[in-house]
Amino acid sequence: MTHDEPKGGNREDALTAWLRQRLGEGHLLGDDAAVLPELPAGSRMVATVDSQIAGVHQPAWLAPRLAARRLLAVNLSDLAAMGAEPRHALLALSAPTGEGELDRKAYFEGLLEACAENGVTLAGGDLARTAETTIATLTLLGELPAGREPLRRLGAEAGHGLWVSGTLGESAAGRLLLARGARVGSEGGRWGVTLPDGLPDEFTFPARQAIWRHLAPEPELALGRALTGLPGVGAAMDLSDGLATDLPRLCRASGVGAEVDATALPLAAAFQDLCTWLDAAPLDLALAGGEDYSLLFTLRPGTPPPMGCSRIGRITEDDITLLEDGTPRPFPTNGWDHLSP
Amino acid sequence: MTHDEPKGGNREDALTAWLRQRLGEGHLLGDDAAVLPELPAGSRMVATVDSQIAGVHQPAWLAPRLAARRLLAVNLSDLAAMGAEPRHALLALSAPTGEGELDRKAYFEGLLEACAENGVTLAGGDLARTAETTIATLTLLGELPAGREPLRRLGAEAGHGLWVSGTLGESAAGRLLLARGARVGSEGGRWGVTLPDGLPDEFTFPARQAIWRHLAPEPELALGRALTGLPGVGAAMDLSDGLATDLPRLCRASGVGAEVDATALPLAAAFQDLCTWLDAAPLDLALAGGEDYSLLFTLRPGTPPPMGCSRIGRITEDDITLLEDGTPRPFPTNGWDHLSP
Repeated sequence: MTHDEPKGGNREDALTAWLRQRLGEGHLLGDDAAVLPELPAGSRMVATVDSQIAGVHQPAWLAPRLAARRLLAVNLSDLAAMGAEPRHALLALSAPTGEGELDRKAYFEGLLEACAENGVTLAGGDLARTAETTIATLTLLGELPAGREPLRRLGAEAGHGLWVSGTLGESAAGRLLLARGARVGSEGGRWGVTLPDGLPDEFTFPARQAIWRHLAPEPELALGRALTGLPGVGAAMDLSDGLATDLPRLCRASGVGAEVDATALPLAAAFQDLCTWLDAAPLDLALAGGEDYSLLFTLRPGTPPPMGCSRIGRITEDDITLLEDGTPRPFPTNGWDHLSP
Repeated sequence: MTHDEPKGGNREDALTAWLRQRLGEGHLLGDDAAVLPELPAGSRMVATVDSQIAGVHQPAWLAPRLAARRLLAVNLSDLAAMGAEPRHALLALSAPTGEGELDRKAYFEGLLEACAENGVTLAGGDLARTAETTIATLTLLGELPAGREPLRRLGAEAGHGLWVSGTLGESAAGRLLLARGARVGSEGGRWGVTLPDGLPDEFTFPARQAIWRHLAPEPELALGRALTGLPGVGAAMDLSDGLATDLPRLCRASGVGAEVDATALPLAAAFQDLCTWLDAAPLDLALAGGEDYSLLFTLRPGTPPPMGCSRIGRITEDDITLLEDGTPRPFPTNGWDHLSP
């Protein structure tokens, strides 16, 4: 028996003892707060926090391992948007105990797996019980190495090109598929997707892709890093609430407007076909669906863009417009609002 | 009109715009993550996270300003226990919108007031809506100035004196008073306490004191700072879950036992009288009531103790016992368990 094993049946202590053993030598847990290793001279620390509420940001039935991975991913995306390197995480996990109990060990296993893949150390946590809802909040601390300037939302100037990484709308299509009964579960140690009844075979591949894009977003850390070193970058941010909400934020921060060319939005062909079956307009999902976790950024004209990015418009002096069929219309404002009743 | 004012009625953006204006020039908000100012050479960062759930950790009716102050206080107590100086806070606030809506501005006002009093800068946040419950999670980052060693839970050795700051049990008595109908509200800009019906006049003062001790704990930052500079300090931690839960944690971390003298526990005389009316055993509240936010620490024999602290026993080789009427009994293990169903 080690001294670290709690007596008297305190469940919190039993879980934290397991966690410390799981983390092994040199872990940062065990005191009232964690003393973080010193950063190299000239490095700056970057901090962000994001919550995931079961039933709001993710399906209530999502496996704890996947829920935990997703929580880290959305936080990593914020660091990607700053061009920072992820270092330490602190998790506050408030969840049911007893009936409807969350498998907290599975949650931590998922988080620690994903942390290990991203060079992140768990540096603290808080455990609490709720009646029904699982709310997990992750604080992620990153590092801007000496000499690296952060990407910011300000810095866009009229004349800059407006760029986005990857494709848009697929995550929202994934959410719609889940609403129509698609499920993800684990069988024999592998994750498997069950697709909604009636989905034609030709949509199997894009449907799976959309579901994974939604449940397991891949933060653009490499792109963020590349952008910090690229002369000619203006502003940058990640697309978490949808272009319709996030582009106006970038424009407000920079004091500029923008013109987006609807035909230039990067929509995968298979995604557009899938939208037909979903009875959803691809443009709506791309603009207002949210949770793309792509990077949105501006480049001075003539700047060679990074691979895999699309120019979707340009920065203007004022007003944000959407160019559809050659006609500029007011930009939609129907992206995700975290406080909308 | 400033460019920072959102159009389109996004409530999250309206709140964050208000917040940035409230914080003024040089605020750290507005990007996907905050770039923190560099620490002086040799300083180390210390990180902790704590949640407060309305109806679990605090009364559901508690005014948002007080709830926010309490959230900061419990986090400050963790930094006090490390001997660190508070620097930056990140708040994740998940609360109802629409019916039963939380007054988020009042919450932020309370937080920012308390942050200002403690030299803390708000460095980030996350806003989400829940159906009913308000869950607030604060991450607090502190600084261990160059040359200052953190207080730790390990470091207690057999023969050390066991010490505690302030008095114990009053916070728990305050919680019992609230359960019996005591309320705290604001009238004409001042906070007022309404005491439970039938409370005799002579208990008015200790009752108010207990209620405030529960709702507005005062973290022991000065004591933590003093202890870091005191040769002869062994282990230290804050008492958040009650001596019955927290002392075993300190002992496990240090690999030691302890003997606590029940007659030496610092119980205010007025608190003991109040317990008679509450029909509660003072010793039970002092051991298992929780939320004292005193510091528990060990000192090498002969070390002059800081002011306002009491020696409640000693560190032993093994086993934790409670000395009652000269007889050692097994130490109770009925403190607060955050995961008990």
